[in-house]
Amino acid sequence: MTDTDTLYFSSYEDLEVHKLMIQDSPRTEAYKNAILSNRILFEGKVVLEVGAGTGILSIFCAQAKASKVYAVEASKVSEIARKLVDENHFSNIIEVVYSKVEDITLPCQVDIIVSEWMGFYMLHEGMLDSVLVARDKFLKPDGIMFPSHCMLYASPCSLPDLYSDWDNIFGVKMRSFAQSLRGLYLNRPKIMSIKLENILAQDINPMVELDLRHCQTQQLEEIIVKNYLTVIDKNGIYQGVCFWFDVQFLNKDNKLSTSPGAPQTHWKQTIIVLPTQMEVEEGDAVMFNVQFKRSSQNSRHYSINLEMLNAAQESHPNPCCCNQTKCKIIRTFLATTQNVLDDDDELSNYDNDQNE
Amino acid sequence: MTDTDTLYFSSYEDLEVHKLMIQDSPRTEAYKNAILSNRILFEGKVVLEVGAGTGILSIFCAQAKASKVYAVEASKVSEIARKLVDENHFSNIIEVVYSKVEDITLPCQVDIIVSEWMGFYMLHEGMLDSVLVARDKFLKPDGIMFPSHCMLYASPCSLPDLYSDWDNIFGVKMRSFAQSLRGLYLNRPKIMSIKLENILAQDINPMVELDLRHCQTQQLEEIIVKNYLTVIDKNGIYQGVCFWFDVQFLNKDNKLSTSPGAPQTHWKQTIIVLPTQMEVEEGDAVMFNVQFKRSSQNSRHYSINLEMLNAAQESHPNPCCCNQTKCKIIRTFLATTQNVLDDDDELSNYDNDQNE
Repeated sequence: MTDTDTLYFSSYEDLEVHKLMIQDSPRTEAYKNAILSNRILFEGKVVLEVGAGTGILSIFCAQAKASKVYAVEASKVSEIARKLVDENHFSNIIEVVYSKVEDITLPCQVDIIVSEWMGFYMLHEGMLDSVLVARDKFLKPDGIMFPSHCMLYASPCSLPDLYSDWDNIFGVKMRSFAQSLRGLYLNRPKIMSIKLENILAQDINPMVELDLRHCQTQQLEEIIVKNYLTVIDKNGIYQGVCFWFDVQFLNKDNKLSTSPGAPQTHWKQTIIVLPTQMEVEEGDAVMFNVQFKRSSQNSRHYSINLEMLNAAQESHPNPCCCNQTKCKIIRTFLATTQNVLDDDDELSNYDNDQNE
Repeated sequence: MTDTDTLYFSSYEDLEVHKLMIQDSPRTEAYKNAILSNRILFEGKVVLEVGAGTGILSIFCAQAKASKVYAVEASKVSEIARKLVDENHFSNIIEVVYSKVEDITLPCQVDIIVSEWMGFYMLHEGMLDSVLVARDKFLKPDGIMFPSHCMLYASPCSLPDLYSDWDNIFGVKMRSFAQSLRGLYLNRPKIMSIKLENILAQDINPMVELDLRHCQTQQLEEIIVKNYLTVIDKNGIYQGVCFWFDVQFLNKDNKLSTSPGAPQTHWKQTIIVLPTQMEVEEGDAVMFNVQFKRSSQNSRHYSINLEMLNAAQESHPNPCCCNQTKCKIIRTFLATTQNVLDDDDELSNYDNDQNE
């Protein structure tokens, strides 16, 4: 193993980390619901879990009547997973394999790969690579990935916890403290919970979307999003960019969301603090480029580069719902055209009626 | 500085630690209320704050009209304290001194010493030593310590978070995981929040009480409590001993409590996990010896040694409200005697009336 891997896997020998993950109800329940509500997919099937930890997700798979589950875990917590498998009387179904998934062989291809591989801002820990290696080695051509899709989101946000909360705290002015505090985060992301009320663009599409059945490890070396545009939906002060992710289990109703609007998880949200703040109004377009680049020092880490763009000078998507004159004109034009089309539709319906 | 001190003071250069402490409302508000509700004591007086951090408590003292405040801070956060003093327009009152308090000289004796010196289980960090050194060097003979008293408590408790919560978690039996988790805490205390409902003896007296005006640093080398007895006030399973502390500012109404019944602070509670659990019933006596001994490796740490005693074989205090026959008999005897005394009192009152 590389030093990075040794450190990484030994970090998962800390049982308090597993306690935190298991007791993270939105996380554990999302997997439980996704697996048990899809019993029809699991029944009689062979499952591989990548990074099984204590094995709780593998146990859900066995409860969903999988015929065989390979629970692969490269840290010594695999010993505890073995005990839990016994305790739940699934030792005839679940086989705990103490290994990196890259180093194992299996007697057969598998029907489903289950994994909870996500780190902070989804990509941290670089564990998805191992899941994709496992997919390419072991998943049947018509096999299922669980989760099947992942989505990364970004929204401008206010950060009162690093700004206005310190204007007067217990009757003391502490703006200079807040300024020093922000200084800590100019060169590193901050993991913190953001209240939904501080998200300035709630109605957004995913910035990055990966179909885990088809994406390639090369894609994970560097993810670049150019000219990402969000439209502010409440007046506020733009002080940071908030990243979060969702993963989806085959359909949109079956997902685990780490968004500021969802119940808090141990992932919280990831914030890039801006060097300066600016006031924004409902309808304003905010644009930036983002690059997630795997660190050359530690392949399990990424550097996040955020480049602010001047939305007044960049071209916007068509249609764009921001308040710039050009975008308004295009919207009006498209709406008019749509009305004409709608009229045509009515006419043709009328024609049809006439013809009947 | 010793290596221990260098490490200790640099740990307070992490601004997130100060953020945590300042935003700990029960902590900061207790000091604010204690200082501002005692304005009469602070007005026109010279104050020394030991370990001022960002200086917020010194600012409360200045708001309470102290004539001079020496805010002594041995970490570089003193630079931020200077800025905050300026921001609050108290640079004519508050002098930030970047030094260990042991190394400073002051132009005069001080009327009041303020300090928030408490660590986990009160004694951790060993900062009280510095406060007492400052007291002996700088406090006027009739000076005031703020806080003035501190009390350490211990109660038997249940630990569902390490036991029963794992009997069935999300439909999975995880007792063997809980057992491994408890294994982590056989040789070290656990800092965690205990719900009041899991405290098995709520009505207890302090196990240790220090009057900060008079206690001596030698006392802090080793604190031994022999034959400490608590009486269980609810049926439950005795799985650990929960320690917490209160500090008091001159009177009982002005205090900061870190008890399980008070709003949660960053100190939480400190737990010693027992090697085995046992059922206890209301009225049972639970006894133990405790020793807090300063670590020889790191003078800012303590080892806590807990020795369980068999309450059936040890002598109990008189009176004792436990359910042992001997203690019940003594209680009955004392109650009878008291009745006789009460009768005598009435008689003597009657006599007095007669004589008037």
